Amino acid sequence: MADPTLYTHAVRVRYAETDAMGVAHHSSCIAWLEEARIEALRSLGHSYAALEASGVLMPVIEINVQYRSSLRFDDVLTLVTQIEVHGPSRLGFQTRIECEGRLAILGHVTVAAVRPDGRPQRIPDALRSALTL
Amino acid sequence: MADPTLYTHAVRVRYAETDAMGVAHHSSCIAWLEEARIEALRSLGHSYAALEASGVLMPVIEINVQYRSSLRFDDVLTLVTQIEVHGPSRLGFQTRIECEGRLAILGHVTVAAVRPDGRPQRIPDALRSALTL
Amino acid sequence: MADPTLYTHAVRVRYAETDAMGVAHHSSCIAWLEEARIEALRSLGHSYAALEASGVLMPVIEINVQYRSSLRFDDVLTLVTQIEVHGPSRLGFQTRIECEGRLAILGHVTVAAVRPDGRPQRIPDALRSALTL
Amino acid sequence: MADPTLYTHAVRVRYAETDAMGVAHHSSCIAWLEEARIEALRSLGHSYAALEASGVLMPVIEINVQYRSSLRFDDVLTLVTQIEVHGPSRLGFQTRIECEGRLAILGHVTVAAVRPDGRPQRIPDALRSALTL
Repeated sequence: MADPTLYTHAVRVRYAETDAMGVAHHSSCIAWLEEARIEALRSLGHSYAALEASGVLMPVIEINVQYRSSLRFDDVLTLVTQIEVHGPSRLGFQTRIECEGRLAILGHVTVAAVRPDGRPQRIPDALRSALTL
Repeated sequence: MADPTLYTHAVRVRYAETDAMGVAHHSSCIAWLEEARIEALRSLGHSYAALEASGVLMPVIEINVQYRSSLRFDDVLTLVTQIEVHGPSRLGFQTRIECEGRLAILGHVTVAAVRPDGRPQRIPDALRSALTL
Repeated sequence: MADPTLYTHAVRVRYAETDAMGVAHHSSCIAWLEEARIEALRSLGHSYAALEASGVLMPVIEINVQYRSSLRFDDVLTLVTQIEVHGPSRLGFQTRIECEGRLAILGHVTVAAVRPDGRPQRIPDALRSALTL
Repeated sequence: MADPTLYTHAVRVRYAETDAMGVAHHSSCIAWLEEARIEALRSLGHSYAALEASGVLMPVIEINVQYRSSLRFDDVLTLVTQIEVHGPSRLGFQTRIECEGRLAILGHVTVAAVRPDGRPQRIPDALRSALTL
């Protein structure tokens, strides 16, 4: 049975995401990791847009990214994301970014559920259930 | 007497703003033009942050950018911006971006004053006065 | 018969592409337009990465963008791009960006074929043929 | 005597760097941290552009960023960067980003000196000396 907390997403490197070294700039993967998180949540039936509309914001509180090999314009990337529940209000997303079977980037991102005013809140039960079944 | 509608601003090209051609990506100047507009308004005593807080938003409705010569990482740019009043609710910003005396980019940006709900509104009188004296 | 110079591409608005007005920042579409151009060329059998590798660079020399309605995070956009040959060394790309049947952005981008040293060169014959059949 | 390995730099949050939460997007600080590194090296007499021209590239191999409080459009940020030598070919940059005396972001970035072909090389002696005096 497929692990509901594991999600695979594909991204192609944009020209705008490259830099003068001829490779993807190290900041570019931050938006890819975000896109992978959002698609991982969608695959569980949870639209992040709908979460925000319902008053659940999930700002990033920490990122750790290790760059193992360079990526170039037009490379097609595979992002495999594992979601972990970290206590009542935090989620961790571990993403491996691979290109043609080669590990390129390891990204760990922690988000915290907060109210629109910034105060912490619990991860919604329906989302928590989807992640812990 | 200095022309209050003319403002000179400096920007240095960031590494993150370059691309695999080894030059500044053509999208990078959009944020520089925006920064120049905001500083030009500030020089007239109008903080764009304060305008937004007072309910005056100024989304961009049209841009035209001509790229005349390439810019590289670490280049120091001079942006000379001329502000024009275009009717009751629109402003035009014409910006010349130069590097070491050479014309690099010509940017024309039109913004429209709108309310937070998106409906058009007049340019605030104080700002209009600052631009037409 | 399908018009080979017309290409439809889809993009979803990233959270990173939004701004404090709650909509896609006006600079975000520059990368979408670029992605649409690259996919339009690919659909004609011309990889832009391969063009660059063969010594044909196509920097942008002019952009004109009209913003007709706002786009939000997670919106799925349809970009319909028409390619036009503008003389021996230039291509024009006219792109309509629509969201749920509503016109959001009109973008016109002109690129020029240049050698790696920046001197103009002719559009490669194979690409020109693909565009004028 | 001033610590040559400690450098203070200022940045103002651009509108383009905000997101739909109304604050600076978490990816925006990656370019600020890069700008702070480059200005810190310049303060030691080492232009990163000149380093690259001499065949010394310094790609980022790891970043860790902790987000402590939100930043908004137009905020003026103070970035205090400490440079550390990590072995023969790596440098670590620890940056505190503060806004009005409040800690906003802690960023740790590791770069590796490489040749244009990507093979590791030693940090140039002149730069190493400037950092260890």
